Amino acid sequence: MKRILTLLTAISFYTLHAQTINEDSAFIKQMSDNIMSSNKASENLYHLTKKIGARLAGSDGMYKAEKWGLETMQTYKNANVYYQQCMVPHWVRGGQDKFFIKEHNKKKQELSIVALGNSLGAGKKGVSGEVVMVNSLDELKTTDIKDKIVYINYKFDDNLIRTFEAYGKASVVRRNAASMAAQYGAKAVVIHSLSHGDNNFPHTGAMAYDSAYKKIPAAALGNYDAATLEKLLTSKTKITAELFTHGYFLPDTIGNNVIAEIIGSTYPDEIITLGGHLDSWDNCEGAHDDGAGIVQTIEVLRVFNELNYKPKRTIRFVLFANEENGLRGGTKYAEDAKAKNENHIFALESDAGGFTPRGFSLSMSAEKMNKILQWKSLFTPYGGDGLVSGGGGADIGPLARAFKTPLAGLQPDSQRYFDFHHAANDTYENVNPRELKLGAVNMAALIYLVDKYGL
Amino acid sequence: MKRILTLLTAISFYTLHAQTINEDSAFIKQMSDNIMSSNKASENLYHLTKKIGARLAGSDGMYKAEKWGLETMQTYKNANVYYQQCMVPHWVRGGQDKFFIKEHNKKKQELSIVALGNSLGAGKKGVSGEVVMVNSLDELKTTDIKDKIVYINYKFDDNLIRTFEAYGKASVVRRNAASMAAQYGAKAVVIHSLSHGDNNFPHTGAMAYDSAYKKIPAAALGNYDAATLEKLLTSKTKITAELFTHGYFLPDTIGNNVIAEIIGSTYPDEIITLGGHLDSWDNCEGAHDDGAGIVQTIEVLRVFNELNYKPKRTIRFVLFANEENGLRGGTKYAEDAKAKNENHIFALESDAGGFTPRGFSLSMSAEKMNKILQWKSLFTPYGGDGLVSGGGGADIGPLARAFKTPLAGLQPDSQRYFDFHHAANDTYENVNPRELKLGAVNMAALIYLVDKYGL
Repeated sequence: MKRILTLLTAISFYTLHAQTINEDSAFIKQMSDNIMSSNKASENLYHLTKKIGARLAGSDGMYKAEKWGLETMQTYKNANVYYQQCMVPHWVRGGQDKFFIKEHNKKKQELSIVALGNSLGAGKKGVSGEVVMVNSLDELKTTDIKDKIVYINYKFDDNLIRTFEAYGKASVVRRNAASMAAQYGAKAVVIHSLSHGDNNFPHTGAMAYDSAYKKIPAAALGNYDAATLEKLLTSKTKITAELFTHGYFLPDTIGNNVIAEIIGSTYPDEIITLGGHLDSWDNCEGAHDDGAGIVQTIEVLRVFNELNYKPKRTIRFVLFANEENGLRGGTKYAEDAKAKNENHIFALESDAGGFTPRGFSLSMSAEKMNKILQWKSLFTPYGGDGLVSGGGGADIGPLARAFKTPLAGLQPDSQRYFDFHHAANDTYENVNPRELKLGAVNMAALIYLVDKYGL
Repeated sequence: MKRILTLLTAISFYTLHAQTINEDSAFIKQMSDNIMSSNKASENLYHLTKKIGARLAGSDGMYKAEKWGLETMQTYKNANVYYQQCMVPHWVRGGQDKFFIKEHNKKKQELSIVALGNSLGAGKKGVSGEVVMVNSLDELKTTDIKDKIVYINYKFDDNLIRTFEAYGKASVVRRNAASMAAQYGAKAVVIHSLSHGDNNFPHTGAMAYDSAYKKIPAAALGNYDAATLEKLLTSKTKITAELFTHGYFLPDTIGNNVIAEIIGSTYPDEIITLGGHLDSWDNCEGAHDDGAGIVQTIEVLRVFNELNYKPKRTIRFVLFANEENGLRGGTKYAEDAKAKNENHIFALESDAGGFTPRGFSLSMSAEKMNKILQWKSLFTPYGGDGLVSGGGGADIGPLARAFKTPLAGLQPDSQRYFDFHHAANDTYENVNPRELKLGAVNMAALIYLVDKYGL
């Protein structure tokens, strides 16, 4: 009798489990059909990139984007939409960046360059001098760079299949090059773009000065022009150059995270966050970085609204302010949460481009990760079943530091990202609508599952 | 003692196994580094698409492509390179396809159209008449289409995440529309492009006539213009149209498979084939379809040569003739193999675009599939570990029918393929070099493993 009971229990558990999986699978399919057959993601991305465009913290574009984000999310009646104010830095490029090089007895030629974000300008007359090349930050210490313009010929590593690994290595150069070069007497620093793209668009991105050293100008060359300069300097040709950059800071100003909140029906105190960042660099439309994450976040809100999904837990859809050069939005979000002693059970970010999804990176305990791994097959039809350890997202990082909140980051395929990242070709046209929407499908599925089963 | 011996055997087996896996992993990494840091794949694709361009069977482009394929593969000294002659069909578009529609009391407007491959022209005066819309092949039977130009508004299914499933459904319409419409008295047939691309390029592709019915003109509309026509016809506006197409056949002509062969050192009679198809439609550069498969095949040959890899088994790198409108190359290859009683142990094709690889589709016995599944983790670093059942490739299909040869098809991500497939935007610029090369890395890995361990 006992064995029969055990068997019956096992059968009913199995049946229940299978039924639940079928229900989940069916609901995720409904969300997928809705998202894949809708043009809304593309329409939103078009507006954000073409009608608003660049939206660096403090710029007019930032204010337009915040207003658009607020009004767009307010059209979905299931959520309460509001601003969460925070102070943001206000860096201004201040003019067109220019770089001219000259060989002895030849005409000067202009190379394609962009000043690094947060760098200070070269003054009205620019900076001029001889160019000396090194291949790494270390070589700055052993090369005579005094009163020179240093070109750091550190290239993006083509052999790393996960391109974010190449970015991780190269961004150390971008961040620290200016102060390290200044420490050894250089006048200005120019780096190779953090890119392996087959084009000449120069790529900007955040740098930081060490206050111990002179704040010298810093800029990045397009890939083709970097190859030109390398060739000249490798052949021991003496090159002089003039660099014109104009960056400066205005006082910090008011920015906003834009938040849509659906209060949970059963566990209103358990908060799930998903989002991307609303700001972009000033030299591009910010379509992949991070227009994609923004419209995907809004797609999840839209599909929940259209399918009349009532979450058990509180879900916040957050368009974060100022990821690129300050992280003030993400920091503020976590500070407020801490002040209110909120219970943040999970956060998901999409900030790796609007490419075809391959899975999620997960930063959480083994136990929680195992729970998510049980849902793996539900992501398989949508390509997002690559569940790997580590990562999350910059904007949700402060939440994890404050609460040990489990984090996830959408992982799109990364092969094309650094063709566009922080460069003028990061445009609407370079985002494929199906790849973008498929990312939203996988995000919606993960948020739905965490909401339904907790974490 | 026996137990100790068993244990020692187990340990040494495990050690050997681990060592072998490490060796394989290291060699695959070497091949990956070589391919990812080389520009050769892009240079080859550039030549094939920009210098040669369209290369439909029988055209001048076909002959140029064959010569280029022969000479390019001859630069790698490890292989014997030769032509395998076959007769190919010679369809000619014959002029510019045109489609004009007219509402009563309005000016006529031109829509973007392309005649379907193998279709016959509408004559010098074209075909004119009223346009009637149906939504499926079935509706042809129940709609009055006599003496009408039929527009079959069968759309590509956005909800199918595997886009080849949508293609499979829609290609039935493309292939059969003309004869089915002729059966019920239509003068000409126009279909929706087999595409969900956010553009207006019309997509061609093979159709076939049923000899029982009149051979009426057949063409496909660009996606935007298809939407325009649908809107007009849905609103019951009476539309008349003129269709001009000019297709005809010249007599069959001589074409060639281009083959590079490395004789195996240990099992020369066991033959492994890999390839793509060298022909393309006449209205495009054929960059994804199938320039990608061609340059990936050559990359595997190149990297084996550069790393001085001596295969145990005989490997044939085949650039197949006439996949698009006849399959004569693939058919000939299998016929010759049959005539010589060759032993074909495995064949791999790349003909699904130069996009980021997700894995391989495998058509073979469960036992052989299990063998390949044991290598799964070796593909993981390169994104190609999605090993699924079914599929292969058109050109290697005849080999499987002749010998039951186990087949594999490279499976790139399919979201963008039907934006470009058989349309004028299938160009070099729309292939990402890293995605293309990563496909070659996974192909090289699979060929290496099958060569080393057999199948």
